[in-house]
Amino acid sequence: MEFVRKARDLYLDTGTRFPRRIIWAMGGLIKYAAAKVNVELGLLSSDVGGAIMKVSQELMSGKYDNEVVLDVYQTGSGTGLNMNINEIIAKHAYLDLGIKVHPNDHVNLGQSSNDVVPTAIRVAAVMEYVESLRPAINDLIVSLRRRINEFSDAVKPGRTHLRDALPITLGQELSGYLDAFLRDVQLLDYVINFVKGLPIGGTAVGTGFNTHPNFGDEVIKVINEVSGLDFIKVNPFMSMKLLTDLVMLSGAIRVLSLDLHRFGQDIRLMFSGPFTGLNEVDIPTQSEVAGSSIMPGKTNPVTVESLLQAIAQILGLISQSSMPQCLGGSLS
Amino acid sequence: MEFVRKARDLYLDTGTRFPRRIIWAMGGLIKYAAAKVNVELGLLSSDVGGAIMKVSQELMSGKYDNEVVLDVYQTGSGTGLNMNINEIIAKHAYLDLGIKVHPNDHVNLGQSSNDVVPTAIRVAAVMEYVESLRPAINDLIVSLRRRINEFSDAVKPGRTHLRDALPITLGQELSGYLDAFLRDVQLLDYVINFVKGLPIGGTAVGTGFNTHPNFGDEVIKVINEVSGLDFIKVNPFMSMKLLTDLVMLSGAIRVLSLDLHRFGQDIRLMFSGPFTGLNEVDIPTQSEVAGSSIMPGKTNPVTVESLLQAIAQILGLISQSSMPQCLGGSLS
Amino acid sequence: MEFVRKARDLYLDTGTRFPRRIIWAMGGLIKYAAAKVNVELGLLSSDVGGAIMKVSQELMSGKYDNEVVLDVYQTGSGTGLNMNINEIIAKHAYLDLGIKVHPNDHVNLGQSSNDVVPTAIRVAAVMEYVESLRPAINDLIVSLRRRINEFSDAVKPGRTHLRDALPITLGQELSGYLDAFLRDVQLLDYVINFVKGLPIGGTAVGTGFNTHPNFGDEVIKVINEVSGLDFIKVNPFMSMKLLTDLVMLSGAIRVLSLDLHRFGQDIRLMFSGPFTGLNEVDIPTQSEVAGSSIMPGKTNPVTVESLLQAIAQILGLISQSSMPQCLGGSLS
Amino acid sequence: MEFVRKARDLYLDTGTRFPRRIIWAMGGLIKYAAAKVNVELGLLSSDVGGAIMKVSQELMSGKYDNEVVLDVYQTGSGTGLNMNINEIIAKHAYLDLGIKVHPNDHVNLGQSSNDVVPTAIRVAAVMEYVESLRPAINDLIVSLRRRINEFSDAVKPGRTHLRDALPITLGQELSGYLDAFLRDVQLLDYVINFVKGLPIGGTAVGTGFNTHPNFGDEVIKVINEVSGLDFIKVNPFMSMKLLTDLVMLSGAIRVLSLDLHRFGQDIRLMFSGPFTGLNEVDIPTQSEVAGSSIMPGKTNPVTVESLLQAIAQILGLISQSSMPQCLGGSLS
Repeated sequence: MEFVRKARDLYLDTGTRFPRRIIWAMGGLIKYAAAKVNVELGLLSSDVGGAIMKVSQELMSGKYDNEVVLDVYQTGSGTGLNMNINEIIAKHAYLDLGIKVHPNDHVNLGQSSNDVVPTAIRVAAVMEYVESLRPAINDLIVSLRRRINEFSDAVKPGRTHLRDALPITLGQELSGYLDAFLRDVQLLDYVINFVKGLPIGGTAVGTGFNTHPNFGDEVIKVINEVSGLDFIKVNPFMSMKLLTDLVMLSGAIRVLSLDLHRFGQDIRLMFSGPFTGLNEVDIPTQSEVAGSSIMPGKTNPVTVESLLQAIAQILGLISQSSMPQCLGGSLS
Repeated sequence: MEFVRKARDLYLDTGTRFPRRIIWAMGGLIKYAAAKVNVELGLLSSDVGGAIMKVSQELMSGKYDNEVVLDVYQTGSGTGLNMNINEIIAKHAYLDLGIKVHPNDHVNLGQSSNDVVPTAIRVAAVMEYVESLRPAINDLIVSLRRRINEFSDAVKPGRTHLRDALPITLGQELSGYLDAFLRDVQLLDYVINFVKGLPIGGTAVGTGFNTHPNFGDEVIKVINEVSGLDFIKVNPFMSMKLLTDLVMLSGAIRVLSLDLHRFGQDIRLMFSGPFTGLNEVDIPTQSEVAGSSIMPGKTNPVTVESLLQAIAQILGLISQSSMPQCLGGSLS
Repeated sequence: MEFVRKARDLYLDTGTRFPRRIIWAMGGLIKYAAAKVNVELGLLSSDVGGAIMKVSQELMSGKYDNEVVLDVYQTGSGTGLNMNINEIIAKHAYLDLGIKVHPNDHVNLGQSSNDVVPTAIRVAAVMEYVESLRPAINDLIVSLRRRINEFSDAVKPGRTHLRDALPITLGQELSGYLDAFLRDVQLLDYVINFVKGLPIGGTAVGTGFNTHPNFGDEVIKVINEVSGLDFIKVNPFMSMKLLTDLVMLSGAIRVLSLDLHRFGQDIRLMFSGPFTGLNEVDIPTQSEVAGSSIMPGKTNPVTVESLLQAIAQILGLISQSSMPQCLGGSLS
Repeated sequence: MEFVRKARDLYLDTGTRFPRRIIWAMGGLIKYAAAKVNVELGLLSSDVGGAIMKVSQELMSGKYDNEVVLDVYQTGSGTGLNMNINEIIAKHAYLDLGIKVHPNDHVNLGQSSNDVVPTAIRVAAVMEYVESLRPAINDLIVSLRRRINEFSDAVKPGRTHLRDALPITLGQELSGYLDAFLRDVQLLDYVINFVKGLPIGGTAVGTGFNTHPNFGDEVIKVINEVSGLDFIKVNPFMSMKLLTDLVMLSGAIRVLSLDLHRFGQDIRLMFSGPFTGLNEVDIPTQSEVAGSSIMPGKTNPVTVESLLQAIAQILGLISQSSMPQCLGGSLS
């Protein structure tokens, strides 16, 4: 792990490490697919290729997460991440399987950080959406539909500018949120398709120098087989330089976050009181934990406020996604 | 103009006035459509309705822009804008046409600021997209295609991290931008459909209190006839409270802005020098104006920097679109 | 106005023009001071210098605002603004006073856009603070002190998480805001000192090439005499490249804005109802204007919401102040 | 740990845990000081107080970091954090020292999450500034001074708009950064004083209900003795509701970040090439690690880019600091 050893001196060390899903994509799936394709193309012996594939699968499962030690804040290309993974694979191929594997010449064969890292980020993002965010939104929608029925006759004061206006039902108010979330998920489902476009095969500057012309397409086939998803190859001159499809995704998440934030604020306001506030809804779960250290009998909207806090953080990180484009990225 | 007179004391006056397109939509098109529908529904005499329609058409054409005097920063509902328009119409109906028209009882009949203002904002946004932004992107795309052909054989240094890497053609680099802009416009075209959903007919709190049940649908029909666009009616409980379809639009504009910003930065860098920089491209138009007051012979990337400055402003305003949702908007 | 004529073709035209205060500083005060100093240094005839000074004073008073026609979004250096002013002065010197004045050789003598524009921005910002923002905060503080006395015994419910907690007085609550605003103004008064550092005399790249070594100091003396303020000269290599003292100012305004926003939200919440909300305070002024177009008898927190809307815009513009630094500014 | 057990079901679990410094302040220092003062005031037996103090010291040293298990995203008051700490102390007092300690009645005596958590955040922030950020800036300043001397005669091209302008020395360019950092640190040193104002003693709503009138002042004395810092007591009605002194701090860090970002970008640009770029400076350290996985001999500006990446993240988090004020915080 010579690269890693030296890089730790030159990079920042803020203590921030790559999340599980990135290691799964970069460390595991892409290196597995690359080795498999390189063997098929006759560029790698089946011994060496097999060893890489075996260690990659272990990386996918999380076995070596603690060896991905380089800080998240590194070069724009993510060479640190890529080389860290390459060296982990070479090390374990030798130590555990007795096969001599070179991190650059074998594990990284036909690849560049400039194409594999942006590929890995996208594979991780799509998988996270499919497995985590999308199901969570579905649950929310199902739950909201149920509540709308339940409260379709529950008349409550309607307010504008927080001042007395006209009666409304709680079901009607909730229906506004339901339709908003349904619309938000439509946008997310649409935008995720852009994130499925991968630049793999472009190598250093997008021209595919030093790799087999079929490499990118074949790697994507393997990624799709393993993940069950439907990635495609797109113009690497776009996809390596401009990660703005991920900004599209962040924009769709921003809309969802804002709708959720407003939803949370409204619930919190309706839950205010009970004696000195609106007291329009009850949230029985919130009384299961003491709301206060000084008044342990108090009930507070703890789940709602957790949500609002997390959204504040998300919105900050999304606004940050406007920044990196200023760095001049991989090309020019 | 009694409302306007009093409101000027209570509102802020920052000197910021509503843009032309908003007056066209709010002052003109929607009030025109509302009066037409109210006459058809037998709720307004044809004299009064006709007078409103006539003044509304003049508002659309810009004739009374200088009478829209209330500041942009007013109540969240936009009651100030709506009442300003209502009073302009009533005034000119009487002064110019001799017809007594009441701003609330006639011009605003069957409407509330809570439904007409969010309707007007969307009608204005869609029209602005169709007539201004979309054609401008088309021009950019056409121009880029031509340049890609022109420079398909122009080999230049490819760099990563601004350091020497491998050769690339200028056409290849530009193709990355072309594909990005094509993708951005796809997103814009998709997202604009959400903005076409209008809440008109919801009145004060979304229940449609105090208006004819067909009012909203009929008004939209008239809007579509006049504008040639295809607005639809959506759940007013969503559309009056949550203007996040406009945040979707701002998110799509953000992506376009970031791609343009990077494009501008790359052009600017390639245009650096000519003696002490990269000097990879020339932009002959930029020499038509003196680049410097102290060195009038100097040529600077003036058009490119104008673009970058405007994008910085746009990104700031887009980040602001996360804020108003905190205000508690029209309901609760 | 040859420069202006050509620049209008090459720059953007978004319809955005420079505000009064910038024209006052750039067009008036700085050009006035520069001409005065150049005459004193024997570099300009008193005829030419006098003509420049006379037109500059007219620019200060606002007489030629409508001739400052170049868009705000132009090159990073602001050459467009500087040359527009130079040409206005040269034109009126000739047409109105019959004196031949050259925009570059005379009006701009010893200056570069790279030093005068960042000088003008700061002079305008400090003046705006001193004449507008600072007095407005003082008024707020005076008014708050009065209300704290008035409401020192007005017991009201204290809430945490909007849920019933312990009694508190309205005076106590308001005292929290008073102390916050007192603290905010301390920061503003501190930070404004950094903004008083000017780079004038640095010319194109900070070295002062092509200007008299005393030029910068002498110009600042004149600026201070006319404005009654206390600007100083600072390292032009810092002050021309890094406008981050203005980001300091924007950061201090951000804090004030957030405190005001929270204050406005609390007032709005306490004013909710009167029947279906908290109804803890009344704001009699708010009933002077109809709150609603559909329910004209309704009273809404119109002044408070105007404030909240304006703050949202301000926060967006402040976040934008992080962007331009990516552009690479005036040097390298 | 009954609270913790229940809270884990109701709060979010994003996997984000409180950083070391917060645990040190909240878990250790404040609870230590509170117990010490409560014993001195005769409110706590010396057995119970001593046990709390002993476990608190262990919390300060990091011994129980892995027992602080509640997610960062919880209620706005931080009741979760406070109760988690209270329960850790009660548990270890009993298990390790055999003393029965009640988390609310003893550990939290005279306190509320509403005053201790905002106190802890500030104590942690000031300590982090004093021990980490301030020394790092000093190092940067010392290093810059050395380089300015070293390069005071190194003439290089000066550019404006990246286009050829006039000669400048590298020392002059660096002097601009030095003065900027000196100014930034002045602002930081000033602003940190506001962060030293603590609300401890205000308990639930700022009135100090249920605590000894001297409690706050005495706790701060102990905090100052242990930390060697100089915290003071401020109006709790301000300090519990408005955490905008921390926004002041974030604003000062934003300025430093922007100056560093620009510095990094300039270094990166001057380091471009060596053959196809400016090649104006060399950064020998950067060649100690392979810049590329596909071209291992390549040297990239790895440290500089790490910095730029981290700054992008910081700026996003800072923009997020505008959000939480919308939540309605602890009061009303």
